[in-house]
Amino acid sequence: MDLHPADIAEVLPEVALAQRVRVMRAAGPEKAALILYELDRDIVPPLLEALGPKRLAEVLNDMSDDDAADILGELPEPQKDQLLSLMEATEAADVRELLKYGKDTAGGIMTTEYVSLKEDMTVDEAMATLRQMGTEVETIYYVYAINEQAQLTGAMSLRELILAPLDARIEQVVNRRVITAHAWDDQEKVARLVAKYDFIAIPVVNDDNQLLGIVTVDDVLDVLEEEATEDILKLANVDAEGQDLVETSPWQRATRRLPWLIALLFGGLIAGNVIKEFSGTLEKVTALAFFITAMAGGPGNAATQSLALVVRGLATGEVDQRRLLKAVFKEAQVGIIVGLVSGSVLAVVAYLWQGETSLGLVVGLALAINITISTMLGSFFPVIIHRLGADPAVASGPFISTLMDVTSMFIYFSLATWLLL
Amino acid sequence: MDLHPADIAEVLPEVALAQRVRVMRAAGPEKAALILYELDRDIVPPLLEALGPKRLAEVLNDMSDDDAADILGELPEPQKDQLLSLMEATEAADVRELLKYGKDTAGGIMTTEYVSLKEDMTVDEAMATLRQMGTEVETIYYVYAINEQAQLTGAMSLRELILAPLDARIEQVVNRRVITAHAWDDQEKVARLVAKYDFIAIPVVNDDNQLLGIVTVDDVLDVLEEEATEDILKLANVDAEGQDLVETSPWQRATRRLPWLIALLFGGLIAGNVIKEFSGTLEKVTALAFFITAMAGGPGNAATQSLALVVRGLATGEVDQRRLLKAVFKEAQVGIIVGLVSGSVLAVVAYLWQGETSLGLVVGLALAINITISTMLGSFFPVIIHRLGADPAVASGPFISTLMDVTSMFIYFSLATWLLL
Repeated sequence: MDLHPADIAEVLPEVALAQRVRVMRAAGPEKAALILYELDRDIVPPLLEALGPKRLAEVLNDMSDDDAADILGELPEPQKDQLLSLMEATEAADVRELLKYGKDTAGGIMTTEYVSLKEDMTVDEAMATLRQMGTEVETIYYVYAINEQAQLTGAMSLRELILAPLDARIEQVVNRRVITAHAWDDQEKVARLVAKYDFIAIPVVNDDNQLLGIVTVDDVLDVLEEEATEDILKLANVDAEGQDLVETSPWQRATRRLPWLIALLFGGLIAGNVIKEFSGTLEKVTALAFFITAMAGGPGNAATQSLALVVRGLATGEVDQRRLLKAVFKEAQVGIIVGLVSGSVLAVVAYLWQGETSLGLVVGLALAINITISTMLGSFFPVIIHRLGADPAVASGPFISTLMDVTSMFIYFSLATWLLL
Repeated sequence: MDLHPADIAEVLPEVALAQRVRVMRAAGPEKAALILYELDRDIVPPLLEALGPKRLAEVLNDMSDDDAADILGELPEPQKDQLLSLMEATEAADVRELLKYGKDTAGGIMTTEYVSLKEDMTVDEAMATLRQMGTEVETIYYVYAINEQAQLTGAMSLRELILAPLDARIEQVVNRRVITAHAWDDQEKVARLVAKYDFIAIPVVNDDNQLLGIVTVDDVLDVLEEEATEDILKLANVDAEGQDLVETSPWQRATRRLPWLIALLFGGLIAGNVIKEFSGTLEKVTALAFFITAMAGGPGNAATQSLALVVRGLATGEVDQRRLLKAVFKEAQVGIIVGLVSGSVLAVVAYLWQGETSLGLVVGLALAINITISTMLGSFFPVIIHRLGADPAVASGPFISTLMDVTSMFIYFSLATWLLL
């Protein structure tokens, strides 16, 4: 049992439940707490069940309060209440406090285990406080100064504290300008702050600037990973939840993916209906059908490129409010270039393949127009969604691809009817 | 000028070059160094040019050595050598050392500014060393014990050091089992280690276990962001480089995207050629054309869903070597379910729309087969690419979508020829 908790957590899903329980019991509450937190969420509930509430309450006592809140937050009410009543009173009170906040907020990911100092302490006294509290708190790398009303008045790093004269008062050496997060801030916003300023932790305050807790960089790493994964899956039209590749059943995963597939299928059928409307043209020029796959795919691919760039730019904060319009305007120019070049290439290839100038002209012109429109759409649309306060990754893909399938077929067959018949 | 460097770096791209230079001069070398590092890479070269080499060398002296190496690494050889010769000798030597490593390796992102302690020092002496070196190093939150041969023999957190008895020797209190990265390890691997164990820094060693430097968590955040962005863009068939939405020219961006678009266009044309081979069938049953868009789109979408899940699973380490086959096998089952359901839906809709049982049967059966194959392909293929040591995100998308376009059309029209004629 000399392994790191993260390594044990990695092996545990491989063994039978009975053995998992044995490992958790052998580990002792403190180590079991660390293992439990590292485990994939899907295998936690049966393990909790098997461990029994009393043993489990002990493990939760030994977890940092934000991690305990995370795990309790996913349990059904009765089980949660039972466990809270079995936990130590002070621990349970801290966790109850954290459970008030949504799990995707600063309050939901913060810990209340930090070091706060009275302003009139000396550096020497502060160091003594640290030595005493050092084992109980999650990080001692920043300390926070608070006044009588528990309001945050300053912060300093442990490095600054160590380098300060021992007889100085905290109020003399603390930094007054502190960057804080608000308890109800979205976790992604908090993560961005920590990443931007290279913090190891950020203090979380309420409306009265009272210090409630801190968010540490390890939680920020988790948030950024989670958000990046969500964006990737949304862009690929998959719901992030319930898609664990090993633990969830195929049936469960299939039912989460089918709605998107079926929706996109109907999008394809609407485009097919456009083709049907032009079946007279198609019957006269069968060769038009040979270009349907390229004509439907090209604009979709171009839109996806723009979409991914803009969605990721918005997520990482690379494209902020001020630069948004500039970015989208430039992207429109990219669309024109990409459209013209792709259209020209297809026109030449179509002419060489089919030996008909007018057919080459039709497919080239149609593709040029469609790719130009779809690139613009792929960059404008997520920005509009973002402005409306929604998540640009989720709504954009299926909408744009269906719209472009239909538009592409309409423009293609309209041009063909006009120029070839 | 009381703003945080990260905030100044955010505003700087908005103002004219002359003003950027003025801000950088006013900031003083130390703050200018921090601003420079935070700036988007695209606006750095002209700014460096305008600042002049002498001033710039001063700024580089005041940067942490890994950040200075990052910036110098992107400059052309003559400019780089000139700046290194203008820098302080010891700083320049450190940076030269770092420049030996590839920029995507542990050596490329590590800093040499850390605290190392001789094993026979006392905790008291170690604290004195920290007080003395505290302002020069990048992090003091871990200290590393080394022997006479500069080999890493242990590590401990500042927290542990503070809590240790003052007269204990370092060798008595240090942790002997240290998780390390190797200098040539890929940066993504190092980032995963730091994220997995919730480290604030990780030591980097060479083949002889000599301590070369440390990688800090702020650099890890950057690496994970960068890798996630790269994966998203690769899945959308865009090169990550040269795609800054505001700073790069539309022409530059278009030329980086066109190769993918044109390649996919030719993929569509190959699928079109399959349709051409079956033009006899198509002329007899024009209605087959109405389903081409759904038949080409559906399998592509299903493959993309699997692809994104597996690529992300591999990137975050959720799917490791041991669980890989299990994951892919389950994904194959998802493919069968998704294929059967989608095919049935299309069969019913096609029958209702066109009123022909046999046509409904053909399109339903073709879609079921195609979606099943493409889902399996979307999960198998990135795993094979990964096993071969290549990046699964970049190679999978275009290959699979072209292959599936061609396969889908072939199966669709083959079934139609067989069952309808």
